[in-house]
This record gives sequence, structure tokens and C-alpha cells, in this order.
Amino acid sequence: MDPLDRTGRTDPGALAMTSRSAPDRLLAVLAAFDHTHPALSLTDISRRAGLTLTTAHRLVGALTEWGALERDGSGTYHVGLRLWEVAALAPRGLALRQIALPYLEDLYEATHENVQLAVRDGTEVVYTEWLSGRSAVGVHIRVGARWPLHVTGVGLALLAHGGPELQESYCAGPLASYTAHTLTDPSRLRRVLAEVRRTGVAVSSRQVTDDALSVAAPVRGPGGAVVAAVSVVVPRADAQVPVLAPAVRLAARGISRALGWRPEGRE
Amino acid sequence: MDPLDRTGRTDPGALAMTSRSAPDRLLAVLAAFDHTHPALSLTDISRRAGLTLTTAHRLVGALTEWGALERDGSGTYHVGLRLWEVAALAPRGLALRQIALPYLEDLYEATHENVQLAVRDGTEVVYTEWLSGRSAVGVHIRVGARWPLHVTGVGLALLAHGGPELQESYCAGPLASYTAHTLTDPSRLRRVLAEVRRTGVAVSSRQVTDDALSVAAPVRGPGGAVVAAVSVVVPRADAQVPVLAPAVRLAARGISRALGWRPEGRE
Repeated sequence: MDPLDRTGRTDPGALAMTSRSAPDRLLAVLAAFDHTHPALSLTDISRRAGLTLTTAHRLVGALTEWGALERDGSGTYHVGLRLWEVAALAPRGLALRQIALPYLEDLYEATHENVQLAVRDGTEVVYTEWLSGRSAVGVHIRVGARWPLHVTGVGLALLAHGGPELQESYCAGPLASYTAHTLTDPSRLRRVLAEVRRTGVAVSSRQVTDDALSVAAPVRGPGGAVVAAVSVVVPRADAQVPVLAPAVRLAARGISRALGWRPEGRE
Repeated sequence: MDPLDRTGRTDPGALAMTSRSAPDRLLAVLAAFDHTHPALSLTDISRRAGLTLTTAHRLVGALTEWGALERDGSGTYHVGLRLWEVAALAPRGLALRQIALPYLEDLYEATHENVQLAVRDGTEVVYTEWLSGRSAVGVHIRVGARWPLHVTGVGLALLAHGGPELQESYCAGPLASYTAHTLTDPSRLRRVLAEVRRTGVAVSSRQVTDDALSVAAPVRGPGGAVVAAVSVVVPRADAQVPVLAPAVRLAARGISRALGWRPEGRE
């Protein structure tokens, strides 16, 4: 299943007949690109953005001239380097990742397991970094992948520290199920979240696939608010949670300190 | 000196009085953000983008609603997660970096030096990845940083394989100088480029600062064209070029293979 299909975003084509503002039309061109459509022809773009070919041609031309899109020899468009340079400034994207990377590398060195960094976007977790050995197998998480909060370790860590309002509305909503073990019972989910807050670690087992387990810990910003989460994902059969948990917590605290967080009192 | 000041891009404010198209105005809002201005107020944006406050307000609103910008509690705007997600699709940005990262990590493990991945944008090199230990000191390269091609190892590797036309126009142009050792003589630069092609490695010493040396090798795409370059940067005093060169070449070939390149004949 395609994670982006679960985001609830409106299908770009559905907007075709609506009158839209100039910014909306330009952003629709950018939104036509996603990880299943990283390369598009002008016709593809016009169809996916719900624009006439003439309008698409004009907007794609402006975006290409600026560098937000790049056109290859065969006339196919890709996302361009200039957009990537601007996006590298996103505090929750590459900027966070640059601060976190040395700690993620240390965590990878210490565990040699898949290592992830993620942030919350509404009711979803978005992976903003992932490290894996060249030979790593099993779990394949992509930078930019999205999942509902309750099915991953990083999601549980972010939900547990997202405040009572978020937790109540989230637990009240329908909880998507992927395996027989997915946490779909609201009261059980609430107990798990309380446990995450108590222990400082979120363990998510068999929630998306039957063979994966993740151990996650929250990353705090200068004011103490949880701004991200870090995790390792391992094959469930080999998982040594008591061994992994301290390493994950240490990495999360290291990133928090690098972001300016300072522990209070005797924590 | 700020690398972005060397890009020759028009100062956004200078366009204030020009009539611009709707896409240009929206892109000017994005271009208002750079690494020295990652967080801007609405007034800052309007000034830097050369827009009236009313127009800036409307465009910033559309960009924020879409997720290209994010507004924090104090009313300051940052680049948003959604833009980062789209930009992650850029083949020469994060997409290349995700393929290259395991090889860059191996190179870092083998050398414990600063490791970089870079691509060419016109006559400049743009760093798209950089790994350094938490305690790494000395050379500070930022993801998104730009330099003229002739002053860095990656730049020489990209220029040497950029085709005769690029080389001729580049060597004919003024060659910026940063130290007494910067390659500013066109005929000497041509000889260096020929040597880079012959050996498969570019060595750049004391070109930007007096204490740094970089060793770089070209990364090839499926068709054999050079699409990126990888390098290590070390303090010049400790530099062991004969030791570093094979490791850098190996990493570059590993990335090339992962991109689909296959060596021909007995190369």
C-alpha cells in the first residue's frame, strides 16, 4: 500500500474544474510530483495538476527557468536542484537532520540496525532521515514516507508527547489496522502512550508488518517540547529491547542537547 | 565570505519595481529564504521579495496553507515540511544522496575525514551531502553551499568531465582567487584538468583556505556521463593523497555502480 494514499490529500485531478488562484495553480504543478511520480511529461503534469496544457506549459516554464523543475533530454521534468536548496532550509527537514546526523551515525555504529529520524505532521509521522547499511534488508523506509502515528515507534513517541488534545482526538478517530497486532483499541492505545511517557521509550511491535519491531525515543527542542523522534527498526525475532532502548534514548538526548535542550533537575 | 553572494543571482530587492508574472512573484517569496535568512517575518519577506505587504501577505498565506512555509508562534516564517517532501524527489538532491549515502558512510568509516557529495550547477559546484564526525573541526562545508568549479576537488572533477565546451568557456572567464595558491592561470588549470582525467582523481590544495586539501573522484550515471563527484577534505599538513585517493575512487565507483553505471572493457 502506498503511504501517500493514506494522507487524505485531495486527488489533484479532482480540483480540475474548480477555479483556483494563481499560487494554487503553481503549487498544484509541484504537487503533481510524488515518490511514485518523480518524473513527469508536460501532459502528465497538466493532467495531474488539473490544468489546461497551455497553463501547465506556462507554469512549468516559469518553474524550470527558476530551477524548481529540471527538464532532461527526453522532455521529462524532475524536481530541480534550486527547490532542493530552498527546502534544505526547512527547520524540520534537512536543518534538523544536519544537527541530528552525527548522533544517528553513532546510533547506527552502535547497533548496525536501521536508524530513523521522524517528525509529526498532524496525525502522521514523516520520516526525515533514515540510515541503513548497504546490506540492510527487511524494513524499507523511505525519506518522506508517512504513516499514521499509532503504528510506529516514532509515531507513538510523538503522539505520547503531543499533548492531551491531540491524543484524545487521535484515540477517538478510526485507528487504521495493518496486522492482527495493530493497536486499534483506543483504551489500549492510551495505556501504551502513558507507558511511553513513563519509560521515555516507545516500543512498536508487529504494527505494520508481522516481522518488524521499532524502539523509539523523543527528541526535545530548547523549550522542552518534543519536536522529533529517533528510532531503530529491527527484525522482531532478534529484537533485544533492553539493549536497544538505552542506545536510542542516548541518541535522542544527544540530538536534544545539540538542539539547545537542557535537562531539568534530576531527570 | 558568504558562498551565496558569489552566485551572481539578482538581489531580490532589485526586482521590486519590475512588473512580474504571478509565478515569479510566488517564487520570489521562496527565494527570500536563504541560509543566512532561514527565518523571516512577513515584513522581511515583502522587502526581500520586492512585493507590497498586501501581495506578500496573500502569497505567504497560500504557501503556508499548502505547507511550503510554516509559521511559528511568534509569527516568523520558515520553509515548511511539505516543500521539503517535494524537494526530496529532486534526482540531483536527496534522491542521489540516498543512493550515495551508504558509500559515503563507508568512506567516512575508512578515513574518518570530512566526506562530501557534490553536483555541478552551471559554473558552480553545489554540495548535496556532507558527513563529518561530531568532533570534526577545520573545514565547514554546508549542504547547499556553492563554490566556483576550479577551487575545490569536486569542482575540478566535475569540470574535467564537463566536456570541452564548458572547459573552454570556464578557463576563458575570470578565475576567482581566494589564496595565493588558487588556480587562476587558465593554461595551468587546463593542465590540471587533463591530469584529473588521466588519473581519475582530482586533488585540490590550498585553493580556498591555506590549510585544506581535498581529494575527489567523479561519479558516473548509467550512460557513463559524470553526474556528481565525491571527495574527502583533510588538513593539508596531514594529507596522505596516495592513501586517500584509492578510497575516494572506490566510493565514487560504488555510487556509480549503484546508479546503474557499468565499467567498459578493461578500465
